[in-house]
Amino acid sequence: MCRDINATKEKFYEYIKQLQGLDYTSNIVFWDASTGAPKSGVEARSNAIGVISGFYHHIMTDPDFNACIDSLAVTPDECDDLTNALIRHYQRERNRVAKIPAKEYEAFQAHITKSAAAWEDAKEACAYDQFKPYLEKSVEMMRQFAEYRGYSGHPYNLLIDDYEPGMTVEQLDVFFETVKARLVPLLKKIIDLPKPRTDFIAAAYPIEQQLHLSESLLDLIGFKRDHGLFKESVHPFTMGVDIEDVRLTTHFYENDLLSAMLSTVHEGGHGIYEQNVGKQLRGTPIATGASNAFHESQSRIYENNFFRHKAFISFLYPKLKETFKEQFKTVAEIDLYRAVNIVEPSLIRTEADELTYSLHILLRYELELALISGTLSVADLPKAWYDKMEQYLGVVPSNDGEGVLQDVHWSEALFGYFPTYALGSAYAAQLYHYMSKDLAVEPLLAEGNFEPITKWLNEKVHQYGALYDPTVLIEKITGEPLNADYYCDYLEMKYTALYQL
Amino acid sequence: MCRDINATKEKFYEYIKQLQGLDYTSNIVFWDASTGAPKSGVEARSNAIGVISGFYHHIMTDPDFNACIDSLAVTPDECDDLTNALIRHYQRERNRVAKIPAKEYEAFQAHITKSAAAWEDAKEACAYDQFKPYLEKSVEMMRQFAEYRGYSGHPYNLLIDDYEPGMTVEQLDVFFETVKARLVPLLKKIIDLPKPRTDFIAAAYPIEQQLHLSESLLDLIGFKRDHGLFKESVHPFTMGVDIEDVRLTTHFYENDLLSAMLSTVHEGGHGIYEQNVGKQLRGTPIATGASNAFHESQSRIYENNFFRHKAFISFLYPKLKETFKEQFKTVAEIDLYRAVNIVEPSLIRTEADELTYSLHILLRYELELALISGTLSVADLPKAWYDKMEQYLGVVPSNDGEGVLQDVHWSEALFGYFPTYALGSAYAAQLYHYMSKDLAVEPLLAEGNFEPITKWLNEKVHQYGALYDPTVLIEKITGEPLNADYYCDYLEMKYTALYQL
Repeated sequence: MCRDINATKEKFYEYIKQLQGLDYTSNIVFWDASTGAPKSGVEARSNAIGVISGFYHHIMTDPDFNACIDSLAVTPDECDDLTNALIRHYQRERNRVAKIPAKEYEAFQAHITKSAAAWEDAKEACAYDQFKPYLEKSVEMMRQFAEYRGYSGHPYNLLIDDYEPGMTVEQLDVFFETVKARLVPLLKKIIDLPKPRTDFIAAAYPIEQQLHLSESLLDLIGFKRDHGLFKESVHPFTMGVDIEDVRLTTHFYENDLLSAMLSTVHEGGHGIYEQNVGKQLRGTPIATGASNAFHESQSRIYENNFFRHKAFISFLYPKLKETFKEQFKTVAEIDLYRAVNIVEPSLIRTEADELTYSLHILLRYELELALISGTLSVADLPKAWYDKMEQYLGVVPSNDGEGVLQDVHWSEALFGYFPTYALGSAYAAQLYHYMSKDLAVEPLLAEGNFEPITKWLNEKVHQYGALYDPTVLIEKITGEPLNADYYCDYLEMKYTALYQL
Repeated sequence: MCRDINATKEKFYEYIKQLQGLDYTSNIVFWDASTGAPKSGVEARSNAIGVISGFYHHIMTDPDFNACIDSLAVTPDECDDLTNALIRHYQRERNRVAKIPAKEYEAFQAHITKSAAAWEDAKEACAYDQFKPYLEKSVEMMRQFAEYRGYSGHPYNLLIDDYEPGMTVEQLDVFFETVKARLVPLLKKIIDLPKPRTDFIAAAYPIEQQLHLSESLLDLIGFKRDHGLFKESVHPFTMGVDIEDVRLTTHFYENDLLSAMLSTVHEGGHGIYEQNVGKQLRGTPIATGASNAFHESQSRIYENNFFRHKAFISFLYPKLKETFKEQFKTVAEIDLYRAVNIVEPSLIRTEADELTYSLHILLRYELELALISGTLSVADLPKAWYDKMEQYLGVVPSNDGEGVLQDVHWSEALFGYFPTYALGSAYAAQLYHYMSKDLAVEPLLAEGNFEPITKWLNEKVHQYGALYDPTVLIEKITGEPLNADYYCDYLEMKYTALYQL
């Protein structure tokens, strides 16, 4: 009996090796496409992605592979944690893919490659019409796929579950209602107060110096640059190719001191998570974050809870003043702190302040829920976007490039992904709260000493990779389930002090 | 009957799409590895390459695919030229791969990935011992594979045939004997003459200016940079990912004006070939050069016959003088021409002059032939290298980094590849001879007007891709088979004039 299990396990891991090899090549092709590949090569790339997906699908639907999963699934006590996590992973994955006819799944992958290229052009030209047919097809395909896969309650439950296992529309509705109930009043209190100065943020900051600064920040927070890559792309992202090959991008703007720094630290947080997963999980799909929201909690905690902290700004300020003498001539430390934490409803999610950020997510959540529900058409999407922007944030984009076309997600049919950004901030606040019981976080930030901080996260969060579901992991670490109050408390305290409300 | 053939063709092309998709991903992973991927990711990369090769092998040995090939092969008259070329291609490919047991073929691919990484480290450390076990394994595997595949005469015939269909050890022996008989005496005449000045070549040339210069040269000769990429790597190479995604690399040295320029124009010649293959061949393995030597003829014709030509130097000289005022203060046009065409036995093949180049190839041909024959051991290779360098070129490397470790080829088990470099120069000379009947090449070079020149090559050579075997193509273009005398005549005339022999 025991020998049988070992033989099955061995076969199971052999299949995983193949799936990981295919994943590796998809990742590298995507990295290549995002960091310089000529647009004229899109047809060949699209074919290759389709072919690789076809092989992936072929293994996922292989009766022998599925027999391995099913046979190991009945004896969880005789399997180690990793094997059990892998079984859960592939059971979910199987449900995500296997019920979709192979040809349609391949066509979908090929479609996404073209859609992403069309989105890039459409965004540049601020021409939603160029992208509309691709988005229509994506929505149609996602709805069709939900039918193939089956779902309980709302088809969107299926989509959010792909990124945040166990999450539902019902829970999300409650989450966003809570956030809206506490943060909108807070925003209202601040919105009419005098704005801090931000003129110096938009001075000229040479790209080369910004690059150097971003690299130093990555080194400071503990991202191992020699075990990865750091490049520029249109939309910043992180890719864990392997625990010793983790790739980040940022985007530099000459007239914005903060954009690249913030996105670098944000992606750096993702990257640190990927680099510090336990070595025994290497070469498996468990060598990544526990969920999308958990991943986002790590980028957010570095970007918001650490980088934007008064104590860290006191560390950063003299360094910036030294590097950018001219631009910082009349800038005091408090000016930098206020500018980094300015509250100002804006058009672009990735450059939104910490307080309004979740309202950007709320808007996207409601819109994609309506698209998937069929209560909103793709043709009406830009109008709906304008309306909700006005309603929640009081600002309206002047074109679709800074509106509905701003994010890459929908071009890749990543519906259900956006909510995890808001959940991530909530996890981050809860983790910061508990970290503060073990470490004197403020003095460490004031010294720019991230070693104990990153080590705490390595031990409490990173090492486990995706061994446990997010609901299990947050309780394991903090002794309680996700609690949105830590997030709202944190923001209320921070902005009350900052604006002397 | 006709309908049957069409159904078979359709299935055949469906398999080709899959093979091309796999090829695409291998190419991109190789490109990524050569242009920046962290070394720490080598294990994951090696696994992925092994997996992709496994799928490739799986299709190549698929009975259904092989039935398509066999069934179409019996009715060449009912198939178009492209289909017939594809059948020939896969029959050869099948012979190259299918007789090797799948596990061994996969292990070989994984070995090559590790071997290439080990070679890079060994080269940097000038430590042959670090690389030796990998090379031993490569030689052993290649000899074993030759047994699996079967061969007539010499096992090396099989290897050279992979790169230059139809070529044999017997023919190569004759070729190199001819070259040796005519070029060694020529070299002897020149070797003791006073050397031209080259001091200015080794002045400081800022990398950024060199990069700009290389880009201008690519534009000038007609490489479409927007349908490709141009980057830096340790060893310059060209990769045709797609006819609209052709990638080149070069390597810049601050204290060498010529190295990057020459390798850029060389790779540019390869790249122009890949970009101008007929569109109807796109997405098939026929959308490439007719053979390795034919490919090399295009890089060599741009590098040697065009770039090093007296007429082109008269065009280039004022531009360099303008860009590098300081470095060119005392440099006359004739100094540049002489320096570009200096004959000086040297250690590094890729930086060898046009005359001694083929002797570097002769040395490699003899050594790899001996390795494959089993008359030379991998352990004795460095010593044999030293001996032959002294014998043919009169110079001896001071370490293995500038000796046996200098080229990437053996690290990837590309035995049989080197001879194609010398054959390429011979094709180039023959093509130049016939081009001169149609075009006034010299005045065009003097104007830096490559348009008619590149167009002639597009029409005569490039458009056909690999539709025809090299022996057929050279006759189609020039009306006669490969004739080494054009090559020897060309070099004799050039150097006789230059050195006033």
